[in-house]
Amino acid sequence: MKYPLSPDVKPEFCTTGSFMRLPAERENAKVGLVGMPFDTAASFRVGARFAPQAIRQASMTLFPYHPVHDVYPFDDTNAIDIGDVPVIPHNIHRSYELMEEAVGTLMDRGIVPIGIGGDHSITLASLRAAAKRYGPVAMIHFDSHTDTWDTYYGEKYWHGSPFIRAYEEGLVDPKKVFQIGIRGTLNHPGDVQESKDLGYHVVTAGELEHQGFSVILEQMKTAIGDTPCFLTFDIDFVDPSCAPGTGTLEVGGFSSRETLKMIRSLTEFNYVGFDLVEVLPSYDPTQITSLLAATIIHDFASLVAVKTKRESLDTMIE
Amino acid sequence: MKYPLSPDVKPEFCTTGSFMRLPAERENAKVGLVGMPFDTAASFRVGARFAPQAIRQASMTLFPYHPVHDVYPFDDTNAIDIGDVPVIPHNIHRSYELMEEAVGTLMDRGIVPIGIGGDHSITLASLRAAAKRYGPVAMIHFDSHTDTWDTYYGEKYWHGSPFIRAYEEGLVDPKKVFQIGIRGTLNHPGDVQESKDLGYHVVTAGELEHQGFSVILEQMKTAIGDTPCFLTFDIDFVDPSCAPGTGTLEVGGFSSRETLKMIRSLTEFNYVGFDLVEVLPSYDPTQITSLLAATIIHDFASLVAVKTKRESLDTMIE
Amino acid sequence: MKYPLSPDVKPEFCTTGSFMRLPAERENAKVGLVGMPFDTAASFRVGARFAPQAIRQASMTLFPYHPVHDVYPFDDTNAIDIGDVPVIPHNIHRSYELMEEAVGTLMDRGIVPIGIGGDHSITLASLRAAAKRYGPVAMIHFDSHTDTWDTYYGEKYWHGSPFIRAYEEGLVDPKKVFQIGIRGTLNHPGDVQESKDLGYHVVTAGELEHQGFSVILEQMKTAIGDTPCFLTFDIDFVDPSCAPGTGTLEVGGFSSRETLKMIRSLTEFNYVGFDLVEVLPSYDPTQITSLLAATIIHDFASLVAVKTKRESLDTMIE
Amino acid sequence: MKYPLSPDVKPEFCTTGSFMRLPAERENAKVGLVGMPFDTAASFRVGARFAPQAIRQASMTLFPYHPVHDVYPFDDTNAIDIGDVPVIPHNIHRSYELMEEAVGTLMDRGIVPIGIGGDHSITLASLRAAAKRYGPVAMIHFDSHTDTWDTYYGEKYWHGSPFIRAYEEGLVDPKKVFQIGIRGTLNHPGDVQESKDLGYHVVTAGELEHQGFSVILEQMKTAIGDTPCFLTFDIDFVDPSCAPGTGTLEVGGFSSRETLKMIRSLTEFNYVGFDLVEVLPSYDPTQITSLLAATIIHDFASLVAVKTKRESLDTMIE
Amino acid sequence: MKYPLSPDVKPEFCTTGSFMRLPAERENAKVGLVGMPFDTAASFRVGARFAPQAIRQASMTLFPYHPVHDVYPFDDTNAIDIGDVPVIPHNIHRSYELMEEAVGTLMDRGIVPIGIGGDHSITLASLRAAAKRYGPVAMIHFDSHTDTWDTYYGEKYWHGSPFIRAYEEGLVDPKKVFQIGIRGTLNHPGDVQESKDLGYHVVTAGELEHQGFSVILEQMKTAIGDTPCFLTFDIDFVDPSCAPGTGTLEVGGFSSRETLKMIRSLTEFNYVGFDLVEVLPSYDPTQITSLLAATIIHDFASLVAVKTKRESLDTMIE
Amino acid sequence: MKYPLSPDVKPEFCTTGSFMRLPAERENAKVGLVGMPFDTAASFRVGARFAPQAIRQASMTLFPYHPVHDVYPFDDTNAIDIGDVPVIPHNIHRSYELMEEAVGTLMDRGIVPIGIGGDHSITLASLRAAAKRYGPVAMIHFDSHTDTWDTYYGEKYWHGSPFIRAYEEGLVDPKKVFQIGIRGTLNHPGDVQESKDLGYHVVTAGELEHQGFSVILEQMKTAIGDTPCFLTFDIDFVDPSCAPGTGTLEVGGFSSRETLKMIRSLTEFNYVGFDLVEVLPSYDPTQITSLLAATIIHDFASLVAVKTKRESLDTMIE
Repeated sequence: MKYPLSPDVKPEFCTTGSFMRLPAERENAKVGLVGMPFDTAASFRVGARFAPQAIRQASMTLFPYHPVHDVYPFDDTNAIDIGDVPVIPHNIHRSYELMEEAVGTLMDRGIVPIGIGGDHSITLASLRAAAKRYGPVAMIHFDSHTDTWDTYYGEKYWHGSPFIRAYEEGLVDPKKVFQIGIRGTLNHPGDVQESKDLGYHVVTAGELEHQGFSVILEQMKTAIGDTPCFLTFDIDFVDPSCAPGTGTLEVGGFSSRETLKMIRSLTEFNYVGFDLVEVLPSYDPTQITSLLAATIIHDFASLVAVKTKRESLDTMIE
Repeated sequence: MKYPLSPDVKPEFCTTGSFMRLPAERENAKVGLVGMPFDTAASFRVGARFAPQAIRQASMTLFPYHPVHDVYPFDDTNAIDIGDVPVIPHNIHRSYELMEEAVGTLMDRGIVPIGIGGDHSITLASLRAAAKRYGPVAMIHFDSHTDTWDTYYGEKYWHGSPFIRAYEEGLVDPKKVFQIGIRGTLNHPGDVQESKDLGYHVVTAGELEHQGFSVILEQMKTAIGDTPCFLTFDIDFVDPSCAPGTGTLEVGGFSSRETLKMIRSLTEFNYVGFDLVEVLPSYDPTQITSLLAATIIHDFASLVAVKTKRESLDTMIE
Repeated sequence: MKYPLSPDVKPEFCTTGSFMRLPAERENAKVGLVGMPFDTAASFRVGARFAPQAIRQASMTLFPYHPVHDVYPFDDTNAIDIGDVPVIPHNIHRSYELMEEAVGTLMDRGIVPIGIGGDHSITLASLRAAAKRYGPVAMIHFDSHTDTWDTYYGEKYWHGSPFIRAYEEGLVDPKKVFQIGIRGTLNHPGDVQESKDLGYHVVTAGELEHQGFSVILEQMKTAIGDTPCFLTFDIDFVDPSCAPGTGTLEVGGFSSRETLKMIRSLTEFNYVGFDLVEVLPSYDPTQITSLLAATIIHDFASLVAVKTKRESLDTMIE
Repeated sequence: MKYPLSPDVKPEFCTTGSFMRLPAERENAKVGLVGMPFDTAASFRVGARFAPQAIRQASMTLFPYHPVHDVYPFDDTNAIDIGDVPVIPHNIHRSYELMEEAVGTLMDRGIVPIGIGGDHSITLASLRAAAKRYGPVAMIHFDSHTDTWDTYYGEKYWHGSPFIRAYEEGLVDPKKVFQIGIRGTLNHPGDVQESKDLGYHVVTAGELEHQGFSVILEQMKTAIGDTPCFLTFDIDFVDPSCAPGTGTLEVGGFSSRETLKMIRSLTEFNYVGFDLVEVLPSYDPTQITSLLAATIIHDFASLVAVKTKRESLDTMIE
Repeated sequence: MKYPLSPDVKPEFCTTGSFMRLPAERENAKVGLVGMPFDTAASFRVGARFAPQAIRQASMTLFPYHPVHDVYPFDDTNAIDIGDVPVIPHNIHRSYELMEEAVGTLMDRGIVPIGIGGDHSITLASLRAAAKRYGPVAMIHFDSHTDTWDTYYGEKYWHGSPFIRAYEEGLVDPKKVFQIGIRGTLNHPGDVQESKDLGYHVVTAGELEHQGFSVILEQMKTAIGDTPCFLTFDIDFVDPSCAPGTGTLEVGGFSSRETLKMIRSLTEFNYVGFDLVEVLPSYDPTQITSLLAATIIHDFASLVAVKTKRESLDTMIE
Repeated sequence: MKYPLSPDVKPEFCTTGSFMRLPAERENAKVGLVGMPFDTAASFRVGARFAPQAIRQASMTLFPYHPVHDVYPFDDTNAIDIGDVPVIPHNIHRSYELMEEAVGTLMDRGIVPIGIGGDHSITLASLRAAAKRYGPVAMIHFDSHTDTWDTYYGEKYWHGSPFIRAYEEGLVDPKKVFQIGIRGTLNHPGDVQESKDLGYHVVTAGELEHQGFSVILEQMKTAIGDTPCFLTFDIDFVDPSCAPGTGTLEVGGFSSRETLKMIRSLTEFNYVGFDLVEVLPSYDPTQITSLLAATIIHDFASLVAVKTKRESLDTMIE
């Protein structure tokens, strides 16, 4: 029997609470999903704590096979879903420890974690876990915001600051960081400049549309190469028409078709982790945001499966 | 450690997909939850297939202790949640077999099943399982409809006929059947009369309000005594203001406070099964219907726990 | 075959667009439904123009027989649904003419009209039609507001003034007007006093709760007797929990159970017309307000059917 | 006076329950709308039984003239709306008979039926009616799924199998079947291959985007020519941002602008029937899905009107 | 001209952003509204930060006069709305300082503050401000929870602990604290006992229903007398049917009519502050929760106005 | 301190009720926002009267700086928000006078008004104010409808006629009027032709897509030059997926990204006024329509700021 269970075995509406009804444990797992329902660091709308369960529920309509990549992302990788980190709503630092530990434990087993946020502050925990094991990592960051603001309401740790903190803590290699899709109103011109000043590559939505993603992709390949790479995806990269259920929407974004095409071209990197953040189910009455998020996670796992498959072919050839 | 997990161990929004995060298996279980997401038999609005997961999700805000009965309903009974029966949407007879088997397996272990529907047609499966083991059972039935219509659209098996089928199949002892809360417009005067003609006790909403539940309760005690008893609760017994998320609403019903009071007085019966049916999450935007359903299930388990506790006290005394 | 069609003939979700699938014409009709989708006169929330279609849609779950009154309200009366008056959104006076004509045409045929609003301004049209044919009428008025304010925003014709206009035009006999359920904040003490000064009986929600409806009922019987009587029901009489879909809600109202009981006791009057107003479907996501409205209309028709039946019995006896 | 009634005669919110207030009967009708509210065959979300009434309601904002085709689709064709087939929710085979009969009766009068689903299983009924009269038909099929799965939950007749059943029954000419827009995750690679093995032309979303619709159009013209042709449109062809109200959404679809352009280019075929399926009003809070569906139906009728007009010009010339 | 502006001056939908369009400053103000949009301390659903603006918006349908008390609550008291405290989402202690300062500044001017939460943690700030000026205060507390749990997720300051913290800090006089309406499932029997052990009077929903509020009222009068008194109202005291938009709902609560009656009987106390907490607009699609909250605030101000009026009469007599 | 307040000073959820917390008055203001909540002239869905407050609320997530234009639109222009015109729902002519006066007063101070509708009828008021001061103006009009129908329901003044009335009153210079984005079904071919017959340039959605906006832009520059110019934006120009919350939606529109690009290219005109109309919050559950509207207003102000900046540079150079 293949995992996830076929609907012939159990209808899709019989959820077990895990992503696509994945088991919590399997041998030789290469991909591990983990819920990170922390949302205290959000500045405006809140409620991403309910995203892991909503995305898992939405995942029930997905099928095991990815036709574009020709892989079974969750079977080729023996994927597992270890449930949610028991974060502490009012305590970001203790929550960071718990999340870092959960993600790190997966990494130590050679499993690529896929974190399901939560607000964008959670990525700092994963980057800490990654940097400890791989040194400063490369980062591909889809978002409408750079999230390199210093403080907000006087607080240093919030969902708009993870990537300035990551820089300060030396978790990323700035020249190998690409922030893609930045758009919307700003506090002042420095908002984006500050990110560039850190050494990050900032690709605004306008530039992305103008240049085409393939140009950016080549730049990333050149800059990043085989460096261990973390991919973080803020759902507000996508246009509100496709992803209304999020906290700090920016109109004028990319469609889900454009978005999936970009993600599907990212097969060449050496991923050590992923996350998907900022889904807010209470603003998603038709559940299209959660479904998009689940689909993107299916694609993330496929990126790992493609690599696993390629390596396995290489091994067979050798 | 006590089950269900305390929020100090894991926040409530970290669901595992089971009711109150109950385990799927425990020794000496006395109560067993089972999802029965069959809704093909509904005549108007559909979607009760999503009720088990919605009610389980809503259960996350409940706490382990029931202060009115002074019991821990899920711990005193070592309750388990065995997940959903893999019903077959388009096939009521095969679904009945699967549901009967699931419920019967629990019964054979001495576990009182609590079925989470699904539309009201599912109760027939549970009654079949019960009658096979205990003979014709008594039945306490909260509903705004008698569900003893013969056919609908020419079909014999639908969510308005389980209790005429149960009669025909000899699953219930008609003199020990109480249908409580009947109200709303009818096809013709015979609608209710037909139920009485079967020998059932029909208590309309008007009679219930006029006589008071304590009078009905005494009649039930006298009629039912120690007979193995099934309690089936259609959420449309409750007024639409408290339970908008259902399929065939009848305005003018009872409040959730009145409803809980009635249920909490039903401690004297010898329960062999429960179910709660007809919650439709897609018509429940604020989730108050699912929360009410989860609370009623908490009360059902408490009715078992009260008996368990009493018997255990009796044993200690002897 | 009985009208409305039984679900055995056609499922309830196969609507024809009329109330309970009533025909537009029948011989010997005694009750006639008519949509009056005028809502320009609303002062706050708007959208009652969509109420007639929403209430007709909700009516599909009702059955032909009324068990409390033992009548078939739409068959015993050969009820018809003549569709909507083509009101003119921006022109209250021309709309009044069209509505008065539609209602009057029914009255001329001996048919009791049941108007489906629309905002409360529409009642003036019906009262004009009634008064022309029967002289000043008695009026039973359920509402949380007296709707006897003079002007609003400087306008004399709006949904808060129909009953001061009706007084001025001599359409009602003030001593035979009962306004029941008045509650909520006011502009000043005079708001209610002005209504009393017209000679109207004002029964506040507090008084109604304190005295009980049976006391009010007796007063109405004494005052009104056989005078031709119009019953107008503003859905905001009912508590927002039972009727959220309306424009100027007042919390602290009566439940739908309490409300139906009051209406069902009103069998003694000589009705020449009814209406039900102020349902706003865009604020009624679960459709419970429309369903309550449809049920109340079922009860209105029953009040006529009871009388028809009684007269027919009288005739048979004679 | 032209049908549908102009808003100068009756405001758009005064619905009669039919599509654009069309009459149920007219002489020389060339187009006939028919509701087919069967949804028991759905595998996940349910509720398409309410689609016919929701789409008819949404149609009220459409106007009689189609500026791209320069036709009055419902007047040039004397279109009628015959209401809903009284399908039987729990009985797909009896429902198929009723639907086939309704559609066939229209065909026998030379009327092109436009079926308003219901789930996609309904198309089998229409194809049966068509094949009986015209032999195996050509089919243009917009969808994100091929709907050629064999069984689901062990059932052969469900909304994912109509086109393997149609093949088996010889209702379509496989070389003249085009399935356009296929995308999303799959059970395994065979899912799409199986459809190709039947001889169907499968055009994935990726291929469609890459080649452009004009290329596909030419292929269809060549393959289909004048063969009697059925056009079936599953609303999930369109992206969830434009059509959230459906049952098995696939993100990454086409926009409504792209979709309408494709449909509007399909003037060259010899249509014997259309349908539009899988709208779920309970997941469509803003009604944009129903409006899109109504607009597509307006376009379907225009495709017939264009042909009628052309033939009438030809006649005039001859 | 009277404040708030009459709708004859400005329609109700022309909001200025303040409660009932109150000014931010007036001479001789006796009542001051202040938004306290802090919600980080919530344990389950979040989003009360949007409550102040939602409640202010809902207040636009209220009128200036309170007919039960015969006062103009906002004019007789020259009420002001000073806007929101700029709380810091991630920092409860700094937020407490800001809220305490805002409330204290009002108190120093002889103004009775009405805090609009925010989750229930905010009350601690107000109690600190009050105790500093008046010594340990009496407290009337409507809620379904005692909010005297010690820690949650290991945190001492959260929305379930304000009243154990208040006890520890000596902000209240325990013998003069009444917690009214407590109900729902518990962690263990100690949950309520702990509150009693502090010396608080705990009145469960069952006791309240059984004894009647008038009995409780007399107990409160005796115990509290003229002691400076704080009234805190958690909207989840009310049943979910009347107040679905809150975070930790308990079914089986009191209706809005019952609730208003209780509040309106509380004229005898010496209020030094009020607050209303736990409204969550994102779970309140029909806005009935916000409207109930606004109405309760109107009643709070009336309690002050009644006293002001009485004192002014006393002065006149002297 | 800069206006609007930075979130470091006050969180975004602490609204003051004005757009981006702008003050009601400032010296040297060049831009003035004004709410025009008139919606009586709508023909189908109603409720735009709540748009000004919803758009202002949505504006709270915008930041002060516009990165594409490199301006601070509300600071470089000392923008003010003067609140709502107290329109009179049932009286379009008196409302026109009040709106014209409010807009005119701003114009007399050299302030460019940005009207927040309201339905599209409001634009006539602004054009009257503009024409009185500047003579017949140029007009750039984004919409899916030409709004040059003569009467509707027999009424001359409604939301589909402002631009035929403007023509008749000589408020615009027809050769300098561009109507962009026209699409959807029509009453008859004359609908669009009538607009062209007035001398207006009509650019259908099809033409716009085919030619590209830059071609249209050049035509506008040539035709309009320095003529005082009014820009009116009906939100239904945008596709329903991006703007579901409006009254007369037309599927097949432009995305928000396409839309913003067009607006951002309009820097060359001599604006004397703007408005944005037809947002209906009650059909916008996720608030994406209001957010899009707020963003467009941010862009309108930027168009003024660009000019202000340019002139100020010119002055510095001179």
